[in-house]
Amino acid sequence: MSRPIKIAVTPGEPAGIGPDLIIKLAQEAWQAQLVVFADSDMLMARAKDLDLPLTLIDYDPAIEDIQAPGSLFIKHISKSADVVAGTLDSENGLYVVETLREACQANIDGDFDAVVTGPVHKGIINQAGVSFSGHTEFFAYQSNTIDVVMLLATEGLNVALATTHIPLEYVAKAITGTRLHKVIHIIHTDLKLKFGIKKPRIYVCGLNPHAGEDGHIGTEEINTITPALNELREEGLDIIGPLPADTIFQPKYLEDADVVLAMYHDQGLPVLKYKGFGASVNITLGLPFIRTSVDHGTALDLAGTGNADAGSFRKALEKAIELAQHQQ
Amino acid sequence: MSRPIKIAVTPGEPAGIGPDLIIKLAQEAWQAQLVVFADSDMLMARAKDLDLPLTLIDYDPAIEDIQAPGSLFIKHISKSADVVAGTLDSENGLYVVETLREACQANIDGDFDAVVTGPVHKGIINQAGVSFSGHTEFFAYQSNTIDVVMLLATEGLNVALATTHIPLEYVAKAITGTRLHKVIHIIHTDLKLKFGIKKPRIYVCGLNPHAGEDGHIGTEEINTITPALNELREEGLDIIGPLPADTIFQPKYLEDADVVLAMYHDQGLPVLKYKGFGASVNITLGLPFIRTSVDHGTALDLAGTGNADAGSFRKALEKAIELAQHQQ
Repeated sequence: MSRPIKIAVTPGEPAGIGPDLIIKLAQEAWQAQLVVFADSDMLMARAKDLDLPLTLIDYDPAIEDIQAPGSLFIKHISKSADVVAGTLDSENGLYVVETLREACQANIDGDFDAVVTGPVHKGIINQAGVSFSGHTEFFAYQSNTIDVVMLLATEGLNVALATTHIPLEYVAKAITGTRLHKVIHIIHTDLKLKFGIKKPRIYVCGLNPHAGEDGHIGTEEINTITPALNELREEGLDIIGPLPADTIFQPKYLEDADVVLAMYHDQGLPVLKYKGFGASVNITLGLPFIRTSVDHGTALDLAGTGNADAGSFRKALEKAIELAQHQQ
Repeated sequence: MSRPIKIAVTPGEPAGIGPDLIIKLAQEAWQAQLVVFADSDMLMARAKDLDLPLTLIDYDPAIEDIQAPGSLFIKHISKSADVVAGTLDSENGLYVVETLREACQANIDGDFDAVVTGPVHKGIINQAGVSFSGHTEFFAYQSNTIDVVMLLATEGLNVALATTHIPLEYVAKAITGTRLHKVIHIIHTDLKLKFGIKKPRIYVCGLNPHAGEDGHIGTEEINTITPALNELREEGLDIIGPLPADTIFQPKYLEDADVVLAMYHDQGLPVLKYKGFGASVNITLGLPFIRTSVDHGTALDLAGTGNADAGSFRKALEKAIELAQHQQ
């Protein structure tokens, strides 16, 4: 491909650390064109707070330059109210959503190779009168995608989730054969298409302690999970499990696994975050474009101070560029 | 104290790797008297399989020697059938239970400072006609203890569990204020008495993803966990939480925590086993004596080969000796 990789970046909540992080990372050279969907005055003011140089270049599809240190391409979207670092303002709720909408559309249209999202504050967006349950749901809706899968990645470990942000008491009922088929198909497809893995090997956790210990500690493995995995194996998918969650994360399995599928949030993410803390990235599988995200929140108390850690945003950018290269 | 620390050791299932591991570890010098509750012929035969020297010295309460490399003290308990490494035989099920019973009683009687248990095979014991759901329950019953708490320890991390081997679908209902009071009192008391920590600091996980996110992802934190923790704080206990399980295991918390209390098995143990794989130890809190255990199974395929990893058994012995020293 002749044109450079183009990454749409949404810094997210303007009062949070998202703008800080992308300005910090813009001081480096990147093998891609980074286009920030945000208010340009807000970015310049934040750069001043951080005492970092910043040149903003208006985005133009015809420009094919990659990132030069100290600069960013900008797709300007006007904020509704002045931004004070660290102080939420519901007047800017709609602005945040508009940055996501435009970045999403630009990816759907094929003008970009990926979108990388900074942290938003769900509460303040909802206070602004927009029903918003998260980036993932928003992008799925915008792109007419019915099912998506959340995958967290850090060096040497990818963890996908069969269920995400639901109360623990509903998890067992939510693990159905249908859901496992959908989730594993999405994982298999996206690991091939987006990650460039020819025959993805998927390790699957059981639902219960010790993966049910032959039915002594729960029967979902026998009645639901194992039958679903066997059907998927018959389709030719490479699946190992169900295995106990407290043994699946040992080196001999991790070296062999392209991804570990956990049945629920706190079964898979504590290990991943422990292993990669400050340097893990959230990837949405199933969307018609590549989307990566930081794995942390807005950290309002650190906004404008220069003390926010850019580790996860860096990984999110690196991963987006890496995945985009597989598409070329 | 004039007499040496005395540790009762049960190798567990004779066809498994338990005998191998204690024979391996007996080649070293230990600052304690290690007394194995097992069949002496079985141990001598296994030592021959492993090509390791072994001298067995009959246990005598009057002897105050510590461990000399290549030897073990033995409290002989006769097996019922010949033992073939790697092959389970239900005829020896009662024998295994008898080793546990005698080691437990010797600890209750105060003749020993701790018991260290190798892996048993629950299935074969039950086939032998003995209803047996695990060491922990057996020792609790033998010692008239109503409530015990399972704690797993590795270097730099102790994880206790509010619920253990129950199906995931029952976990939410099992987390009651009463249970949290009991579990946290046991943890607090045993960390003081057995671990020698003057004012234990207990970090507590939420039940739901993101610890419920202010009620958006489940209400148990608001209705059950936080009120229980506040009552315990009013009693003077040092408790932090509830915190999200995917952030509680970061270094700044772990450096500060004496123990992390997870609400259920797969919330806490994947991180612990990942962090300490092959070198974590299971400790039963609440018993009237110190009990540590390996964190793995019988690994029948490795029995008699010399290839079994003694890491966890070593940690279990070290931890038992360490805790026993706090009692002196």
